[in-house]
Amino acid sequence: MKIGFIGMGIMGSRMAANLQKKGHELVLFNRTREKARPLLDLGASWADTPAALGRLVQIVITMLSKPDAVAEVALHGNHSLLDALAPDSLWIDCTTVNPSFSRRLAGEAAARQIRFLDAPVAGSKGPAEAGQLIFFVGGRSQDVDTARPLFEAMGKAVCPMGGHGTGSAMKMVNNIILGQAMTAFAEALAFGETLGISKQAIFEILATSPVTAPFLNTKRQKFENDDYSVEFPLQWMHKDLHLAAETAFETGAALPGMNAAKELYALAIRNGLAAEDFMAVYKVLAKKQ
Amino acid sequence: MKIGFIGMGIMGSRMAANLQKKGHELVLFNRTREKARPLLDLGASWADTPAALGRLVQIVITMLSKPDAVAEVALHGNHSLLDALAPDSLWIDCTTVNPSFSRRLAGEAAARQIRFLDAPVAGSKGPAEAGQLIFFVGGRSQDVDTARPLFEAMGKAVCPMGGHGTGSAMKMVNNIILGQAMTAFAEALAFGETLGISKQAIFEILATSPVTAPFLNTKRQKFENDDYSVEFPLQWMHKDLHLAAETAFETGAALPGMNAAKELYALAIRNGLAAEDFMAVYKVLAKKQ
Amino acid sequence: MKIGFIGMGIMGSRMAANLQKKGHELVLFNRTREKARPLLDLGASWADTPAALGRLVQIVITMLSKPDAVAEVALHGNHSLLDALAPDSLWIDCTTVNPSFSRRLAGEAAARQIRFLDAPVAGSKGPAEAGQLIFFVGGRSQDVDTARPLFEAMGKAVCPMGGHGTGSAMKMVNNIILGQAMTAFAEALAFGETLGISKQAIFEILATSPVTAPFLNTKRQKFENDDYSVEFPLQWMHKDLHLAAETAFETGAALPGMNAAKELYALAIRNGLAAEDFMAVYKVLAKKQ
Amino acid sequence: MKIGFIGMGIMGSRMAANLQKKGHELVLFNRTREKARPLLDLGASWADTPAALGRLVQIVITMLSKPDAVAEVALHGNHSLLDALAPDSLWIDCTTVNPSFSRRLAGEAAARQIRFLDAPVAGSKGPAEAGQLIFFVGGRSQDVDTARPLFEAMGKAVCPMGGHGTGSAMKMVNNIILGQAMTAFAEALAFGETLGISKQAIFEILATSPVTAPFLNTKRQKFENDDYSVEFPLQWMHKDLHLAAETAFETGAALPGMNAAKELYALAIRNGLAAEDFMAVYKVLAKKQ
Repeated sequence: MKIGFIGMGIMGSRMAANLQKKGHELVLFNRTREKARPLLDLGASWADTPAALGRLVQIVITMLSKPDAVAEVALHGNHSLLDALAPDSLWIDCTTVNPSFSRRLAGEAAARQIRFLDAPVAGSKGPAEAGQLIFFVGGRSQDVDTARPLFEAMGKAVCPMGGHGTGSAMKMVNNIILGQAMTAFAEALAFGETLGISKQAIFEILATSPVTAPFLNTKRQKFENDDYSVEFPLQWMHKDLHLAAETAFETGAALPGMNAAKELYALAIRNGLAAEDFMAVYKVLAKKQ
Repeated sequence: MKIGFIGMGIMGSRMAANLQKKGHELVLFNRTREKARPLLDLGASWADTPAALGRLVQIVITMLSKPDAVAEVALHGNHSLLDALAPDSLWIDCTTVNPSFSRRLAGEAAARQIRFLDAPVAGSKGPAEAGQLIFFVGGRSQDVDTARPLFEAMGKAVCPMGGHGTGSAMKMVNNIILGQAMTAFAEALAFGETLGISKQAIFEILATSPVTAPFLNTKRQKFENDDYSVEFPLQWMHKDLHLAAETAFETGAALPGMNAAKELYALAIRNGLAAEDFMAVYKVLAKKQ
Repeated sequence: MKIGFIGMGIMGSRMAANLQKKGHELVLFNRTREKARPLLDLGASWADTPAALGRLVQIVITMLSKPDAVAEVALHGNHSLLDALAPDSLWIDCTTVNPSFSRRLAGEAAARQIRFLDAPVAGSKGPAEAGQLIFFVGGRSQDVDTARPLFEAMGKAVCPMGGHGTGSAMKMVNNIILGQAMTAFAEALAFGETLGISKQAIFEILATSPVTAPFLNTKRQKFENDDYSVEFPLQWMHKDLHLAAETAFETGAALPGMNAAKELYALAIRNGLAAEDFMAVYKVLAKKQ
Repeated sequence: MKIGFIGMGIMGSRMAANLQKKGHELVLFNRTREKARPLLDLGASWADTPAALGRLVQIVITMLSKPDAVAEVALHGNHSLLDALAPDSLWIDCTTVNPSFSRRLAGEAAARQIRFLDAPVAGSKGPAEAGQLIFFVGGRSQDVDTARPLFEAMGKAVCPMGGHGTGSAMKMVNNIILGQAMTAFAEALAFGETLGISKQAIFEILATSPVTAPFLNTKRQKFENDDYSVEFPLQWMHKDLHLAAETAFETGAALPGMNAAKELYALAIRNGLAAEDFMAVYKVLAKKQ
């Protein structure tokens, strides 16, 4: 069965590659065709529009940058995905979006008798490449069952959370912790250095400490080498926290710490660090004088 | 050899008990004698003043609430510890204090030919009781060697950080992460609940997630049962973050996220939660209406 | 000439009343007709839909709660305002919205040859009633000239800021200051009280101080009497700051202080204070144990 | 009658100069004699130590950088001011310090039968030079009466607040508002610029707005000219907010907004702006990529 895949960014290209490796026949669409080239060379098909893609598949996965990009591809204009998909086909949106937006997409899909799952992921470039992502999934369990082989080709865990929007909700919950874990650690490193404790010594102590989020150890080499090359772009972290702020406004939640972290990433972007790894927020805090 | 121990609070009483279990003969002092009762009943001696204690021992450990309390016991008045200790004796301060204060204590000790270690701990009530603390130690390595059997009686790891004050510095670094890990998690829980995801579901997902600081799992039962009984008092977390803010002022570090967390604990104290476990910061954020 | 007015809330009803007093013939629309009753009794006409209203007037003013409400009235569905207005008519949107949204509205209007001004106001219930509002206006100067008599009937100053969206931009700038002036003052009052200085004494000193935003003196009686009855609802302040956060995300601005203030209002809403005056943010800080 | 004056910094030198102009005979002490030169040339006397000064006067004013500096001059060592002042003499401390520190000073003074006022000022370099300061005074009313001619030589208003420490308390209250007024305004300027509204336009609108603290207009020329030359050093603002944070910790107040502002100044110091005017916090936010 052919699988449609829309979005060939850092994440999407790696996720699609894993589907291809597991033998799935892919039809691809991306804003720029060039990024799809490696998978096309390995046998994937290309569609010129989301609608053209939609007419060729029963299952489609979208992995885009933000809600607007999903709306653009799926809902708007004359070549939209949703108007082309056949009834009873399944749309899996892996983009990080607001839960209310996921519910809106589910509604738009339902109006066309299309099945829908919101299925954003935990994990960045490395886990995407290694097929080690975690999927937080919102939607009906029979649809999760349909999608499970695909999730398993791209990740190591599938977490059904409940109805439509709960996958996106869990992603927001996850990001609130992730975004602050990094700013807190960056503060701790920069602060420790003002007290004469090196980054190496801090990692030595904290690597196995129960106060340290384990993912931070994956950044150890990079921090020690002042290497901020991108795995998860800082501007995406900022965007994800902004989405969480939007959702908190909708639900009436207060997130003082998250907003403080969000503004640290905003300052980092001000300082030209948008495209570096999100660990580069450390540079805003580190002593420069 | 007799060991002096000053400070019979939640932490000190448990640390001293572990020394006693390992066969060390203790001389105790505390503001209120009553709290020393269990150890006195098991054979420890009592001293009526810090100075009286200082005249009986070659090694003394202090585990007090804050810098002022250490100054009161060790430096001030006619019955101070430091004026009573013999030259070449060793003073180990386990209190969480500013690194600059540790260096001041080291200087006061040195002026009297007394050896000094700053050795604050990671771990609260449970690890203190189980002898599973981690000691961050600042001072000379031969003094760390002298103290090592005592540290090993009370803890599971000794981390020599460098010269005087670096033990206290590492404790500050640790607290910056710990204090924010809790507020971030509390935000995530309260936020998730506004989206219809239960605390149970969030723990289920995050328990093994690389974004979650492992210590948070030790709070799972308590969070799920709305049990905020004290292991590490919220007001101590607030005090520790305030000390970090003081130290950051001294060294010129910027800690925006830490300060946001500090003020959440301050709001919690405003709401009457000072004596509950520091996880009670969640109550400030959780929906009440 | 008939003037259309859509939105009979706290602000809109008072603004329309001032237009009526100055002799303008009004056609009104509101979600609930009841709120238009006083002006209808004094001779204004009623329209059953935004479109019906649009067919009766050459100039229409909208004063609604938020961007979504404007889109609902002006753009969506079969009875939208914009599809009914005649070419060359003038639409003045006084709602507080994102500058990017104002530019979008201007574009939608231009596509139908309709003239557009974004003209949000500074001033709440009192100034609205007294005709003392300040209008920040974005759009072409000839359109500002057309609208000037209306602005002058409702306000005391008209501030043309530049092209479409700059009126809304200036409103955001204003709100960033307003929202933080209140939280800072609330902190100062609550803090002063912990030091034994009464609210009266603080107002006495600060009333004429150059550090105090003059508008705060209009709240003096209310603060001293613990009267938080609504002039500008706290939830609107929160909403306005959320819009500023959205706009900052779009333009890449960092607003750490504004976000901290925003979250204080969010906590106030959590505490059930959404419908009180925005000065009620003080209660979050003053809460006694 | 001779007046002692200790502290010849930006503020103290100007305050003492106004006393001299009004005909008061001065005895000066400062860490570096050089800064006292202009007043010495005009007839003031010099004392080699605080104690030497204390033996020559019945009234002494201290205007120093921070609590530690006051303690150093007044309390410590063999040449301290307090041990030299005669009983019934009056000590007026104009330094910005914690209220608890003022009360401690009052207690030290009382133990020596010396009268004490805490009398910190509102106003920076310009008002100090023009004799336009405002004195917030804590202490007994008869002592305020004694000091009034001196206050009036240096300032335009005397605000007796209550007992010892209340002068310092009111200064903290004032600083909480001042520090945040500047960061909020800086955010508004930097944000407005991302939306295409110039600093000039923003000042044009806000200069007479009730949301704007009037003191900001005194910075207009400087902001428009990118002139950050010092009137009130940014590092002093940071220090004053840190003192407020210390006092809030002592009294149990929560100051989330103030702490966010404090950390913006900390980031500014990180960026090398410590010695510029506190308006330079704007540069942290305006920084271009």
